[in-house]
Amino acid sequence: MSVSWVDRIKWTADGLVPVIAQEETTGVILMFAWMNKEAVKLTVETKVAIYWSRSKQKLWRKGEESGHTQKVKAIYLDCDDDVLLIQVEQIGGIACHTGRKSCFFNKLERDQWVVNAPIIKDPSEIYQ
Amino acid sequence: MSVSWVDRIKWTADGLVPVIAQEETTGVILMFAWMNKEAVKLTVETKVAIYWSRSKQKLWRKGEESGHTQKVKAIYLDCDDDVLLIQVEQIGGIACHTGRKSCFFNKLERDQWVVNAPIIKDPSEIYQ
Repeated sequence: MSVSWVDRIKWTADGLVPVIAQEETTGVILMFAWMNKEAVKLTVETKVAIYWSRSKQKLWRKGEESGHTQKVKAIYLDCDDDVLLIQVEQIGGIACHTGRKSCFFNKLERDQWVVNAPIIKDPSEIYQ
Repeated sequence: MSVSWVDRIKWTADGLVPVIAQEETTGVILMFAWMNKEAVKLTVETKVAIYWSRSKQKLWRKGEESGHTQKVKAIYLDCDDDVLLIQVEQIGGIACHTGRKSCFFNKLERDQWVVNAPIIKDPSEIYQ
């Protein structure tokens, strides 16, 4: 299999590319994370999102503890070849470690960040 | 005016925060860019997206040449306080410097990136 498609991606100095995960059916932005080349290739091969954890410095198989995996339906590269967008089916309907659907739940209202999305499942029940 | 909301944002070592721009009415992801603290504050104050250009190392008033400004309708901060999502009205319907609506127009089909969105306006007509 040719890997020329992966070599078109422009990586940061750390060898990473930013990734936006969007729910395919609704357009909701679920989360933002990073992949290295191995993560990108594994994501494409397995059709399940696998990120690079910058804090743990290792591959992060999204959902391996929670079961909230992301089935990858489409992958886009931006005009500068340095950002990926993946459109996914979010298993369990929860992408965020707080138990919410999306990680983007703090909305700026006047001069305050206001939580505007419910906790679907308590994190203590998700991560045991 | 209190600026405590802006101080909640966690910046990179370079003093930046990644920003996802999404069309408010459709959910389409238009582009990905960066802001520094000044850009975030100006964006909130003016309700028009102002980014930080990493290549030019200066404020980037999106649309100042093209007219394709972004009216900011909502701003979200993610669960880790280090990524912003702005929901916008894209004036002119074109966010990308290639003349396309979105910067994410290269779709991975098997092992190739395939352009899957039309050029709405030729860049030579946008940037004169």
